[in-house]
Order: sequence, then C-alpha cells, then structure tokens
Amino acid sequence: MAPVKISIIGAGSAVFSMRLVNDLCKTKGLAGSLVSLMDVDEQRLNGVHELASRYVRELGADLRFEKTTSLETCLHEADFVINTALVGGHAYLNKVRAIGEKHGYYRGIDAQELNMVTDYCTITNFNQLKFFVDVARLMEKICPNAWLLQTANPVFEGTNLISRCSNIKVVGFCHGHYGVIEMAEALGLDENKMDWQVAGFNHAIWLNRFIYDGRNGYELLEKWIQEGNLEKWRPKNPFDLQMSPAAIDMYRFYGIMPIGDTVRNSTWYYNKDFETKKKWYGEPWGGPDSEEGWKWYEQQLKTTTDAIDFLSKNRTLKLLSLNTYLKFLPKGAVPVEMKKEVEVFSSPDKLSGEQHIPFIDSLVNNNARRFVINVPNEGYIEGVPNGVFVEVPAIVDKDGWHVEKIEPKLTDKVLRFYLWPRMMRMEWALHAIMNGDKAALIEFLMRDPRTKTLEQAKAVIEEILNLPENQQMKTHYEKGLKL
Amino acid sequence: MAPVKISIIGAGSAVFSMRLVNDLCKTKGLAGSLVSLMDVDEQRLNGVHELASRYVRELGADLRFEKTTSLETCLHEADFVINTALVGGHAYLNKVRAIGEKHGYYRGIDAQELNMVTDYCTITNFNQLKFFVDVARLMEKICPNAWLLQTANPVFEGTNLISRCSNIKVVGFCHGHYGVIEMAEALGLDENKMDWQVAGFNHAIWLNRFIYDGRNGYELLEKWIQEGNLEKWRPKNPFDLQMSPAAIDMYRFYGIMPIGDTVRNSTWYYNKDFETKKKWYGEPWGGPDSEEGWKWYEQQLKTTTDAIDFLSKNRTLKLLSLNTYLKFLPKGAVPVEMKKEVEVFSSPDKLSGEQHIPFIDSLVNNNARRFVINVPNEGYIEGVPNGVFVEVPAIVDKDGWHVEKIEPKLTDKVLRFYLWPRMMRMEWALHAIMNGDKAALIEFLMRDPRTKTLEQAKAVIEEILNLPENQQMKTHYEKGLKL
Repeated sequence: MAPVKISIIGAGSAVFSMRLVNDLCKTKGLAGSLVSLMDVDEQRLNGVHELASRYVRELGADLRFEKTTSLETCLHEADFVINTALVGGHAYLNKVRAIGEKHGYYRGIDAQELNMVTDYCTITNFNQLKFFVDVARLMEKICPNAWLLQTANPVFEGTNLISRCSNIKVVGFCHGHYGVIEMAEALGLDENKMDWQVAGFNHAIWLNRFIYDGRNGYELLEKWIQEGNLEKWRPKNPFDLQMSPAAIDMYRFYGIMPIGDTVRNSTWYYNKDFETKKKWYGEPWGGPDSEEGWKWYEQQLKTTTDAIDFLSKNRTLKLLSLNTYLKFLPKGAVPVEMKKEVEVFSSPDKLSGEQHIPFIDSLVNNNARRFVINVPNEGYIEGVPNGVFVEVPAIVDKDGWHVEKIEPKLTDKVLRFYLWPRMMRMEWALHAIMNGDKAALIEFLMRDPRTKTLEQAKAVIEEILNLPENQQMKTHYEKGLKL
Repeated sequence: MAPVKISIIGAGSAVFSMRLVNDLCKTKGLAGSLVSLMDVDEQRLNGVHELASRYVRELGADLRFEKTTSLETCLHEADFVINTALVGGHAYLNKVRAIGEKHGYYRGIDAQELNMVTDYCTITNFNQLKFFVDVARLMEKICPNAWLLQTANPVFEGTNLISRCSNIKVVGFCHGHYGVIEMAEALGLDENKMDWQVAGFNHAIWLNRFIYDGRNGYELLEKWIQEGNLEKWRPKNPFDLQMSPAAIDMYRFYGIMPIGDTVRNSTWYYNKDFETKKKWYGEPWGGPDSEEGWKWYEQQLKTTTDAIDFLSKNRTLKLLSLNTYLKFLPKGAVPVEMKKEVEVFSSPDKLSGEQHIPFIDSLVNNNARRFVINVPNEGYIEGVPNGVFVEVPAIVDKDGWHVEKIEPKLTDKVLRFYLWPRMMRMEWALHAIMNGDKAALIEFLMRDPRTKTLEQAKAVIEEILNLPENQQMKTHYEKGLKL
C-alpha cells in the first residue's frame, strides 16, 4: 500500500472525476490516498465532492478528499497532478466558433486540416494553453517532483508546450486507442486474440500492427468491406466513427487504419460543410464535430450534469444501486454511454477505462501494465524529431515507461501526408504563443484553404483578440511577449 | 594540369554550355580536358559544337570536344557529368500549364505554395525526374566514380530523388545566391566588405548572416526601407526581384531576407492572379513566373538562340570581338543580360559566374574556393533531417566539401513556416513518383488552396496523364510501379 496525493485540476468535470474516484477505490495498492479536487466552479466542485465522498463510504474504500478553489492548495505536496480543466468552458468554444463562421470559417478557425476536433483549440484558446504552462510552472515551485498527467485538450500542443516551457515530468493521456476495440467488435473479433499496436500523435494514431490469431488482421477488414458492410454501416451516435466511410477512405489512402479521434482529424474535403460531413461520418449527425453532432454531445453533457446534480442532492440514493434504478426507467430514457458509466459505478470491481489511476498504480507499486500514452519521441517513430510528443504503447512500471518497438513502422504516407503536416501545425501554434507572434497567427490562417484574403484572416483574429476574456491574449500578441 | 572528361547532358542549351566552355578555357588547371556535348536536338548540338570549337581556337586554349546524341557515349569515361537537360522543353511546360489553367490552377498545377518557379515542375514532369534517375543509374554502370553536377530543375527534388535511387555522388548547382550581390548593389554596399551566409534548400535560401564592415547589415537594409526606397523600387526586368515588395514582406515575416529565386517561391497570396503578382513583384511583368514575365523570358531565349544560330553560321565572325560589334548596334537592341554574357566571352580572363568549372577545379587541383552548393544535410541546418539536400556555403578542395557552420542559425519561422512545408512537398512528390502512387498525386493537389473539389484534382491529373508524351507516366501511375 502506497498512499499518494492526486490533484485533479478541473475536478468539476463530474463524470471524469468520478471515473478516477471509481478506479482509485478499486485499486488496493493506492488505498489511503488523498484526492485533491480543485475547480473554480464551487457549486460543481461541491457536487462532485459530495458524490465522491458518498461513493467511497458506500464501497468502504480507504480514500480521503480535499476540495479547493486554490491551485496552490491543490498542488501542495501533490505526487500526481491531473489537469482536465477547459478554461472558458464550452461557452468560449461556442463563441469563438461563431466568430469564425461569421468570417467564412465553417466550424471555426481552430477546425484545421487534420485537426478538426471541436474542443481541441490550438489557435484561439490562449487562456487554456497559458494555463497549462502556469500549472507546470507552479508545480516547479510547489511540487517539483510530481508528475503532470495532461488530460485537457489540446493534448498534443499542450504536452509539447509544457515540455518546452518547464522541467516538469509530463505525460499526455487520451482514450482514443479504444477505437481498436470498437473495430474488433465491428469485425466480430475476440479482443484477446488480437496483437495490435498504434502509433502517432494524440488524436493522430494509426494501427501499424494488426494481427489476429496469427494472421494479418487487415485481411479481415478487407473482407468486412468486401461483404458490403461499409454500405450498411450507420453510426449509433455521433462518436461512432471507427468504421465510417471517412475511416475506410483514410485507410485506403494511408494503407493502415486511423484509430479513434484520428478519424475526426481528417482532410478538409470530408469536412467542408454539413452535407459533406454527413456523407463521410454518417447520417444524421455528420460526426461529433458538426453542428448537429456537437449539439447532441452538449445535450448529453447536460443530461449527465443534471443527473449528477440530482444524485448529489438526493443523498439517500445509493450509488452502488444505480444500475437497479435504471432498470425501472423506460427504454431509451438514459443514453447508452451513461448506462455504461452506471454499470461501472454499480460494480464492486469494474474500472472506468481511463488510464490515469492504473498508470499511477503501475509507477508507484511497480505493477507493470500496458498503456497508450503521450511521451517525448526518442526514436520510437522514425522521421519524427526527438522530443516531439508521440502517442505510443508502453509498459509502465516503477522505472517509468518502456515504449514498445513500433513494428511494423508507420507507412510512409502516414508520416509524410499526415504526421508531418499535423506536427507542422503544432509547431506553428507553439511558435505563435511562445513568441506572442501575431503575424504567425495570421499566417497560420493564410495556410488554411478557407482563407480567401489576407483581410479575412486579419479580421477574424482581431475580433477574437478583442473579446473581453482575451485581454491577456491581446496584450500578449500585441506586445510580442514570450511565454 | 589535370585533364578530365566533363560530360554535358542537354548541351544544346547554348548559353549555358558556352559559359562552361568559357570557364574551362580560362581555367589552366583543367587544360587538356575533354568536353562531351550531348543533346537529342542534333541541330542545336552542332551549333554549340561549332561555336565552342571556334572559341577554343580563338583563345588558343587546350580543350577537346566530342559531340553525341548518345547518353552512353557521353558518359563513357566521364569524370564529371553535368545534367542541364529539360525533357520535353518549354513546349511541355506550356502545355501542362495550359491544362492546369483550364482546370482552375493559375500558372499550372506545379505552381505550388513556396514553389512557384515556372520550370520547376515537381508534379507533372515525370519524364524529367525519371530521366534524372536514368542518368544516375547509367552512370553507376558506365562511370560509377564520376560526380553528377545536377543543374536541371527541379534541383531540390532532383538531388533528393537521385540520392535515394542511386549511389552516385550528386551535388546540386544553382546561382540563386547571387541575389546577395544584387542586394549589396541595391544598398550601395561594397561586396568585399560583406560577411554573409545563406542557407536553406535550392530556391529556398535565406540570408542568415549579413555583416557589413563589422556591423549588422540588416540595419542598412532597414535604413534602405525607411528612406522610402521600397516605394521607389521598380524592376529592371522580370527577374529583378531581390528588393521587391514580395522580398521585403517575406523579410518582415521571416526575420531574414529571402535570396534569389526564394523570392519567387512565396505564398499563394502574392501569386493568386496577374494583378496580385504585379503588386508584389512589380509592374509591368509581375515577376518572371507570370504570363507576361514568362513571355519576356521566352522572348529573351529566342533572341539568344537566334544570335547563337547566327554566330554559328557566320564562321568569319570573331567571338572574342563580339563586344566591339555590339557597340555599333543601336542602344537597347541587345538585352542587358546578353551584353553581360558577351563581355565575359570577349574577355581573356572573365569567368561566367557558373560554379561548375571552378568546383571541378577545386576538387581536381585542390584549389580551395567557397561555393554555395546542394549537398545532403549532416546537421548543417538544425531541424532538417539528415540526408535531405540543403543549399549551403562550403569550401571545396581535393577532399570534397566542407560546409561552413551556419551561424547564426536560420530563424524559427524560416524553419517552421518555410523550409518544413517546402520539404514536405518535396517528400510528397518523391513519394508519388517513387511508388507510382496516383492517389498521392491527387492528394498533393487536395492540399493546394486552389482545389475546390476532389473531381477537379482528379480531372486535371487525368488529362495530364493522357497526353501522348506521358504514356510512360500513365503506365507508371496506373500500375503503381516503383522507380
């Protein structure tokens, strides 16, 4: 038993926090740990704290909590810091997206070639990226030996930025690689007979290895396609994209399958308008990053928030019995995703699937496990400069991560047509923010196929800089400040 | 004295060949050398052979010639091979450009972001790139120890392609760095007091070092701008761009000056139509790569070819007296550029400025000199992968090249916003041709801001593949052949 202090920044994201609490309760090696819940939204923080405490009591787990709105308090004596905060929240995303659309940028200026995930703002969310750096630098002062588990998007830009602006140990987390399991399910495969690897950047990973029961798994994918399954394919929800026409078209071009959110991060010509998105990502949503898909997602979030609110206020409800309550609700009243969550919470041993707590357990208790994590490249992906964060499979134990040899290598086309252009845009974003280089922000947009004139690019940047919440951003870029 | 055999492929380019012959005649250490003139156009070949022989006789130089239409004969026992051939000639360039324009690609599909030089075809000129490789592979059989001095465009794609497809020693040549001298003249500086360096790729070089008489030369450039010289600037001819608004705007963004053809290789928003080109590259031509600029250039070529033709037929004319003849012609009858050539030819010791013969002399006779050449990167430019050809200053002697330490380094912005995107397009072109990957050709165009639909990109590629001279290209791409 090795109790640690785990600090969750942005703990008001109730579902995410509860997943971590769930995993902690069920990880014996971390019994006695202290979880510091930190959020600027006190109401949501209180709700999560109440639920988490109740859940621990119900399970009889050995876990302590503190709640705070102070970053300093949260970081005090932390061993692990999990940053999941979205500065400005969805309201800000929606606002800048609307400004982008007004200036001719469908889905906003952050919706870039090979980077179309809606909450992955690399250009407009100065406050978010700046906060990443602020957290890391505060950690240098308060808990310099702690690990930073970077979870908030953009993970790719974020991990690279943090590593260039601080000496904190940072690792990036995502669950996009579970797309492999979705694919296995679609192909009717037994997950346990699969030998797979993915590699790339966050939200830009590719199935370089796919062996099923000793044979080339891609033959099974070909068979799935040839049997007309692509034509029959319909998404169950906006996020159900692993077998979409977009994914298969990318597979055809790049030679291997894009996994998870990589499918969303495709070319402009799958994404130029809603009609086109529907063609490539399925009816009726056109994927999660369309107007309809994102509306669906925000509705889900609201339902969940309401449920969390209800649960936190009704203290007599047993969290461990949620699964039983659900059975009495009419069919369809609860979204599938929530049902899965509830199943996990209601079980005495099921884990959430988030990698954070198992990762901490592996490190602290030398409990070696396989993860897919974002760490600085050290020759793992040939052709990507060392130091750039790559998302790769690794065994983690007390000595840290041991990245698997990526074999076979990613295809030439993935490297040249996907990873490099994606990396270049990361470098553009980081150059701009690290140097307060407004001309670079504008030039970033000049390389966007939607930009017709220099004036258009300048105007949209000006309007965003002039938002009241972007006063610091404006000063930063107008004075050319270094980060 | 160390006589060598120098083989010129595409020797029918009379001016270029005569420049080399001029330099050879005036390089004592190479006396007794054999020059093999090779071209498929026998008439032009004969003309050049006649002129070259006469010039040697007039100068009393010790130089022998052979002329041949056979590549094998030309390469036989060669020590140095200079490839300057443009397969398909200007007629092919003009034809594919017209097809491009019909499909909505102003100045053709090869006119790409950061690669706008008209005869630098990276997508459409399969025959040219294939020929580069054929020459190198034939050299492996016939003259495996010879050096290949790659001069024909595209030099960047060409040198990289050759080095990946053969083991021949290849070096790329260009004279774009003389833009430094043009800049010095514009600023009224004494060339001998300048300490300068350029670095980058071919047609993509930047003035990383500019010290004048011990002080920062960029202050002098700033002064030139502040004194209103940019507003007063007018081009003397379409190629006179070193101090153009485009160059200065690039300097403002990238922090250092683009040199020579780099100014032509700018962003789409200087180049989207003729009116825009005129704004950035000056009236009335809008640079050499506009319709008017290229027309001017082709007219110049014709005047020169006619003059060469006239000279080769009128055998009683003394080439060494050309300068005297010129004086009797009315002012303006002969283009400035030709006057410079004639001055060189008429002089007993002036060199042409082409680097090839001095380079050979440096290698063969250990006559150390400074060059700007294209060689594989070996850490010279940080951030560019090793093996990719870079254009850098180097001292050449009997041991080969010794690249200068590039100091100060290129700016971050040159690397991230210019060299990487340019390199990426080189990699796309090489991937496509080396794998016969038609989908990659189409995707290349999908990343072009002028492409509106997939159909548009497919249609223009199809039309080009279906040209009668592109039968081999078509087979290559339809069968997915490796190069």
